[in-house]
Amino acid sequence: MPPTYADSSDADGSSTSSTVVYDLAPDCTVDAVEVDANYHATVNGVVPYGVFVDLSDHVSGLVHESVLDGDYDVGDSFIVHLDEVRENGDLSFSEASPADYTTEAVGPENDATVDELDDKVGNAVRLTGTVVQIRQTAGPTVFHLRDAGGIVPCAAFEEAGVRAYPDVEIDDLVTVVGEVESRNGSLQVEVESLDTDTDEAAATDLDAALEEAAQPATPDPLVEWEAFEPVREDLESVAATLKRAVLDGRPIRMRHHADGDGMCAAVPLQYALARYVQSVHVDPGETRHHLRRLPSKAPFYEMEDVTRDLNYALEDQERHGQKLPLLLMLDNGSTEEDTPAYRTLSEYDMPIVVLDHHHPDPEAVEPYLDEHVNPYLHDEDYRITTGMMCVELARMIDPDVTEEVRHVPAVAGLCDRSRAEVMDEYIALADEAGYDEDDLEDIGEALDYAAFWLRYNDGSGLVDDVLNVDCDDDQRHRDIVEFLASHAERDRDRQLDVTLPHTESEELANGANLYRVDVENHAHRFTYPAPGKTTGAVHDHKVREHDGDPVITIGFGPDFAVLRSDGVRLDIPEMVTQLTDEHPGAGVSGGGHLVVGSIKFVSGKREQVLDALVEKMAEADIDEDLRSTLLRD
Amino acid sequence: MPPTYADSSDADGSSTSSTVVYDLAPDCTVDAVEVDANYHATVNGVVPYGVFVDLSDHVSGLVHESVLDGDYDVGDSFIVHLDEVRENGDLSFSEASPADYTTEAVGPENDATVDELDDKVGNAVRLTGTVVQIRQTAGPTVFHLRDAGGIVPCAAFEEAGVRAYPDVEIDDLVTVVGEVESRNGSLQVEVESLDTDTDEAAATDLDAALEEAAQPATPDPLVEWEAFEPVREDLESVAATLKRAVLDGRPIRMRHHADGDGMCAAVPLQYALARYVQSVHVDPGETRHHLRRLPSKAPFYEMEDVTRDLNYALEDQERHGQKLPLLLMLDNGSTEEDTPAYRTLSEYDMPIVVLDHHHPDPEAVEPYLDEHVNPYLHDEDYRITTGMMCVELARMIDPDVTEEVRHVPAVAGLCDRSRAEVMDEYIALADEAGYDEDDLEDIGEALDYAAFWLRYNDGSGLVDDVLNVDCDDDQRHRDIVEFLASHAERDRDRQLDVTLPHTESEELANGANLYRVDVENHAHRFTYPAPGKTTGAVHDHKVREHDGDPVITIGFGPDFAVLRSDGVRLDIPEMVTQLTDEHPGAGVSGGGHLVVGSIKFVSGKREQVLDALVEKMAEADIDEDLRSTLLRD
Amino acid sequence: MPPTYADSSDADGSSTSSTVVYDLAPDCTVDAVEVDANYHATVNGVVPYGVFVDLSDHVSGLVHESVLDGDYDVGDSFIVHLDEVRENGDLSFSEASPADYTTEAVGPENDATVDELDDKVGNAVRLTGTVVQIRQTAGPTVFHLRDAGGIVPCAAFEEAGVRAYPDVEIDDLVTVVGEVESRNGSLQVEVESLDTDTDEAAATDLDAALEEAAQPATPDPLVEWEAFEPVREDLESVAATLKRAVLDGRPIRMRHHADGDGMCAAVPLQYALARYVQSVHVDPGETRHHLRRLPSKAPFYEMEDVTRDLNYALEDQERHGQKLPLLLMLDNGSTEEDTPAYRTLSEYDMPIVVLDHHHPDPEAVEPYLDEHVNPYLHDEDYRITTGMMCVELARMIDPDVTEEVRHVPAVAGLCDRSRAEVMDEYIALADEAGYDEDDLEDIGEALDYAAFWLRYNDGSGLVDDVLNVDCDDDQRHRDIVEFLASHAERDRDRQLDVTLPHTESEELANGANLYRVDVENHAHRFTYPAPGKTTGAVHDHKVREHDGDPVITIGFGPDFAVLRSDGVRLDIPEMVTQLTDEHPGAGVSGGGHLVVGSIKFVSGKREQVLDALVEKMAEADIDEDLRSTLLRD
Repeated sequence: MPPTYADSSDADGSSTSSTVVYDLAPDCTVDAVEVDANYHATVNGVVPYGVFVDLSDHVSGLVHESVLDGDYDVGDSFIVHLDEVRENGDLSFSEASPADYTTEAVGPENDATVDELDDKVGNAVRLTGTVVQIRQTAGPTVFHLRDAGGIVPCAAFEEAGVRAYPDVEIDDLVTVVGEVESRNGSLQVEVESLDTDTDEAAATDLDAALEEAAQPATPDPLVEWEAFEPVREDLESVAATLKRAVLDGRPIRMRHHADGDGMCAAVPLQYALARYVQSVHVDPGETRHHLRRLPSKAPFYEMEDVTRDLNYALEDQERHGQKLPLLLMLDNGSTEEDTPAYRTLSEYDMPIVVLDHHHPDPEAVEPYLDEHVNPYLHDEDYRITTGMMCVELARMIDPDVTEEVRHVPAVAGLCDRSRAEVMDEYIALADEAGYDEDDLEDIGEALDYAAFWLRYNDGSGLVDDVLNVDCDDDQRHRDIVEFLASHAERDRDRQLDVTLPHTESEELANGANLYRVDVENHAHRFTYPAPGKTTGAVHDHKVREHDGDPVITIGFGPDFAVLRSDGVRLDIPEMVTQLTDEHPGAGVSGGGHLVVGSIKFVSGKREQVLDALVEKMAEADIDEDLRSTLLRD
Repeated sequence: MPPTYADSSDADGSSTSSTVVYDLAPDCTVDAVEVDANYHATVNGVVPYGVFVDLSDHVSGLVHESVLDGDYDVGDSFIVHLDEVRENGDLSFSEASPADYTTEAVGPENDATVDELDDKVGNAVRLTGTVVQIRQTAGPTVFHLRDAGGIVPCAAFEEAGVRAYPDVEIDDLVTVVGEVESRNGSLQVEVESLDTDTDEAAATDLDAALEEAAQPATPDPLVEWEAFEPVREDLESVAATLKRAVLDGRPIRMRHHADGDGMCAAVPLQYALARYVQSVHVDPGETRHHLRRLPSKAPFYEMEDVTRDLNYALEDQERHGQKLPLLLMLDNGSTEEDTPAYRTLSEYDMPIVVLDHHHPDPEAVEPYLDEHVNPYLHDEDYRITTGMMCVELARMIDPDVTEEVRHVPAVAGLCDRSRAEVMDEYIALADEAGYDEDDLEDIGEALDYAAFWLRYNDGSGLVDDVLNVDCDDDQRHRDIVEFLASHAERDRDRQLDVTLPHTESEELANGANLYRVDVENHAHRFTYPAPGKTTGAVHDHKVREHDGDPVITIGFGPDFAVLRSDGVRLDIPEMVTQLTDEHPGAGVSGGGHLVVGSIKFVSGKREQVLDALVEKMAEADIDEDLRSTLLRD
Repeated sequence: MPPTYADSSDADGSSTSSTVVYDLAPDCTVDAVEVDANYHATVNGVVPYGVFVDLSDHVSGLVHESVLDGDYDVGDSFIVHLDEVRENGDLSFSEASPADYTTEAVGPENDATVDELDDKVGNAVRLTGTVVQIRQTAGPTVFHLRDAGGIVPCAAFEEAGVRAYPDVEIDDLVTVVGEVESRNGSLQVEVESLDTDTDEAAATDLDAALEEAAQPATPDPLVEWEAFEPVREDLESVAATLKRAVLDGRPIRMRHHADGDGMCAAVPLQYALARYVQSVHVDPGETRHHLRRLPSKAPFYEMEDVTRDLNYALEDQERHGQKLPLLLMLDNGSTEEDTPAYRTLSEYDMPIVVLDHHHPDPEAVEPYLDEHVNPYLHDEDYRITTGMMCVELARMIDPDVTEEVRHVPAVAGLCDRSRAEVMDEYIALADEAGYDEDDLEDIGEALDYAAFWLRYNDGSGLVDDVLNVDCDDDQRHRDIVEFLASHAERDRDRQLDVTLPHTESEELANGANLYRVDVENHAHRFTYPAPGKTTGAVHDHKVREHDGDPVITIGFGPDFAVLRSDGVRLDIPEMVTQLTDEHPGAGVSGGGHLVVGSIKFVSGKREQVLDALVEKMAEADIDEDLRSTLLRD
């Protein structure tokens, strides 16, 4: 977009009053000049047939000796008149000596921000921003430049496969001048020059603009809920952190518990974040490089997962020149068992954000975390599920997702048997969206079932349909939920058929009814439901039978046991600690909440460990209120 | 390809008799006009300096007032003379008033079908067909248009990453006008206009043409075999269904039993279908998106497989805008255990076609199937193997594959011990192709062995060489077969060395010789042959020892048993039903044919279930003819 | 780059003395001609309006009858003057009859080698070389041409997806004429003509040049070590073989033992080879297609690995037209158990190179190997570790890697407890590079730990950082090593806590202290350290306790046992042979060195086999020098 000179028609170098002489800014390109206008020029070379002059860093040309009046050396300045732009792009000037003139500064007309590039295809622009990714291709080096308007790839070609501007690093503030191109329909800037910018004011301005851009939206909460308010404040901070990560070109790697609540947390957030990534990057293909969702099978961040995450992150960094990702732990990650992994990642410049509603060890984990949201930190408990939190978080990132996700908190609550007083409101909200309570239960069951069979696969194609987020076919959603939920039920019943007849019962000294079931020898193996869920199904069955009396269920295999209880004040973490101390060589480890948990040991010590465990259970107090796990139906 | 006007040399607008005035069809592009010819034109705009006229939807230009005689309004028609095509493509007309003229309709010369595009690179064409895929790229939206001549990608650009023609959906009949381009050497059409076509006649014509194109070839069968004839008719229908799926742009996902017969079925079919896909799509890169072969480890369509298939299908649909695939089950899929999976897929618009020769449950499965081919449905049995069927099916899709596959039925028959009376003819046919019976046995054994080690990998590189289909190096084929077959034999012998000494024998009341072997504790684990095949090897060994007397073999592990029998009228499916009823809580399930099968139970009930099973076996009738599983050597 | 004609200014066809007439070589293109020069020409066609003449294979044009003096037939030669190069590229000649002239040969100025193409973008060149890869794309056929200067892709377009020059095969010597293009910044040649060259001299010259190029570098060894010298000579031969493989366009597939020494071997070699591949291929994207590193979990080349390797190799051959790869076995591959795999691969034109320091069976493996390096072949032993060998080998391929890898031999030696007399020098060398002995131990432990959790993943991102090869961030290296090594130690201690209390001891008749530990029932399962390493940790613990007295440790599971001994002259391979013979049906197999090894059996025979094994151990001689496995700390 060349500038239009208001009065350039008479700018022929004649000495009329108020002749204009333009002074080009250093960044101006040839687009900024016009034939028959006058310019301030500086000599940059003297040759036998004339002098070469610079009008800016990017505009030069010859004043032939035949049209040169004075005698100039390199560095001298004088006024020139642009006579001609030749076919090959060369500029021919003649010397001009206007008796009277005014100087007008030209440029930088090309200054633009990333969000304005759409309209500038084919034109030169000047962008100022931070380098957030440097990808060396077989051809050019691609610098991803980020300003307050978004992120755009800028291709600089030095030599095939050779790093252009080798001194420029990630996080450098730079000024790029180049032409905006549409490449396969996607925008990029063909770099003409790239300068490291040391202007601290510009850096400060940009940072302020980004800070502003990262501000969370503040939609009204889906339901009024006082207990949620402190958590809500934490979530606003997380929303800003996540938006800022996207603006900083930092990928986000989500690890979520592979169960119903975990998916109710991860899927809405993935949806909102994907939309945000899409809005920030001018290249629509970038989403898949900047956002990944991965299920975690274990109830903590296990060594295999962190080893792989770290390896992939380092490979992506090397291959695509990306920043290391921000790790976002969902419905997982608040406990001491997660710290070994965190310790390393934080050393690797991988920020960690945790949203969990399992009983946390804040002293253990928080030194490694950038953000930690957990209702227990506000004297609340797991009834505020991770899914509930993440739906509000997703809306803070992009309020327009509300319609798609307003049924999700109810699903999350039912999955984790939340006794929140607002459950009815969440369910009513889902009802408005067309889901009755049975539908919601089925969705939860279907998520669990899908998670089981998908194993380490994120199953996006399927899971989005099950949860009906980003799925535009309602019938398809209903079909897949019906299919998965009915199979989950069938398989659970099949498992109960073989386990219940072999469940051994005993009444403990404290009056609790203890059930023990061998989930290795009296259950179908390698199928749904797995031992933990099988134990839960047995327990729920027994709780219904006893109608309020205290019930404890132990489902055991060769080297593990799963524990569920109702109406008894167990303290499973404490019991595990005691067992570990009292039985050296039994390899006892494990954990959980007060009344649900799991425990591992070496198989040769199973009898000894379980007997000791039952002894402790027999001494526990009866407490009818501890009924958190009661099945809703 | 501009039209040539027979008598255009005097078409200068003078009033000679028989001046020709051309009337362009709406779809004609500028390629259809010629300087100095006359045209019917319609005014589409009036400006101070003349009028703009349309000759067609794509051809417009100016009649300058200086060469305009009449006074026209928008919508008026008159005759123009094309004076000039300017460098920038603009057309200049003058008004023409021939005293006497004849009108000739021009166009649509550009009408083409997909198979004609090769010769039209650089030209505009008009295609009428159905949209079979809509892929949104970071740049244009790519509509895959299908007519009777094939499928071509048509790229329409609205804005980077923005859906062009958002109202157009899969299966819409449309007319595309655009230029044929060669992009990386592959053809595509650059869309100029895309109109939804509501011409029912065109739809009917296209459907008839596709119906015709999908007709199966009718090569003579490889061998004359009366028993095969009813199956053959079914196969012709399947051939038409599969060809039509390809013509409809629907991907085909093949799931085959991961054993010798399963691969003898899948590989020839994959070969023929790949060639057909190649012939239908002008983009040679499409084959891999439209055809996948996957082995199934289980003898039925298990939950893990269907969950993944569905997830991948939905992801491909979202990512590539493809239709959901047709599922083709080979050597698997006829039984009640497959129905849960089918039910869902059929709700998802995923047609299902089954070719199997295991004992079917037609009432259970057929409600969900588009086609079901199984010899048992024609009072035949498993001696007509799936491999035999699929070789004929492959030839119906592409008769030119015959040379490559004529040895395959013999391999399939030997793998599954078919006692078909035409086995000798199949073997003779293979002999003509250079394979003696030992070669064929080795190929079968090599396929089994490769399937075991490849696990969930389709192993195309290897399997094609083993079966010598689409492998152009005979020596390589022989080497790999020799390698795999000799290792299979070595490993089987090694397994027999440890199992035979621990096989316990007993004579049942009915005179049958029962052998029991613990394939968990007295066999090498996690290696070839797996428990089922190990049991079979023990059984074959014992059958040879007893030389005709009835033999039953049970190979058991902690929670399963594999059953083989010879000369005894067992009814394994019935026995499983009885055991399930009689032993609640033992988790009994399973199935099979009369005399081979498998059974699962919970490990804590193994003794009880096996004892009950043996009791039932002792009551079975002796029947010397039930020798189907006799080893051929 | 058109030729400049020294005296072409007067080459106007007038009969001045010494008029120059140029004689173009057959390969000259139109770049070699100039308007107003004279040329020898040959008639290739006679038309009514003149004759067409050839100046070379690529330069032709018309002599119009109006400027043609003589009467010529096809095949006649005469002299022409180039009058004009028209806009469309056509050449117009007139006949010239200089009274006196001299002939000058022109061309082939365009002759080039692959390493010179950088400067020739946009120009025509003639390359002579061997075809090393033929990739059929959806567009052109891409021939990868190799000469002594490197490998360049040459794209020949026949028709979309149709094989150009179908007679040309891999390994053919060809001459390509075409234009050098920069495509996405990477060079390729757009083929104008491709001729099979039968010039034997050229073939011989090329081979000699390649032989020369493949010569290994001969850097001074990192440490002076006489025992290493014979191995060093073998390594030079391997270096030449590997360089030649790269020059031949043959991919290299590395399989290495997934432990510390295996990675110390593979990582430096991968680094050096990647740099070499990069230097040979003008397309920088080729590295990933030509070099793969894969860990092998088993201590031999197991059936699952070879089946997959073969399958992938065949698929790559079909898909990319690549040669089958060279297999490079590292820290693995010298034993009889590897031969089944080798037999097949060698039949498949897959050269095999083995570098191992485990006790070899040269008679068994060498018939299948192209190179076999093993210190035992020179009366040395495992103290020369594979990592030590590979570091020297890497330096022979690229001496510039020395700085990056000089600490690696020390790590390798510590990992495998090498008692080499130069260990101190290696450690001193590492110390110079900034690693003290604790650092090196930690690196080794970290490699082991990472290998365990990465399973079948090569883990490049992580492993390069751990070993600090091709990692430019020292702090990051230190962090990840500290993280992994400390976890390895923690997990090993945790394992010892549960195994030591259940380790049963007995004193054998020969005075050796035998320890037995059930690593299935008294160890944590599916975690680090696995049974073998757990047994080693128990053994090391007991060795320290006994302070020099003989110790044997057996760690057993249901169907395997791991053996470690110190100070006893066991001969484990011999014991396995005896047990196999004496216990038919026990399925005994296994192997190892004299004093470390493993043994498999069927679980039903465990007691019998272990008792027999212990009996043999009780008869072994005590030998205090057999302390190879003593822990260094």
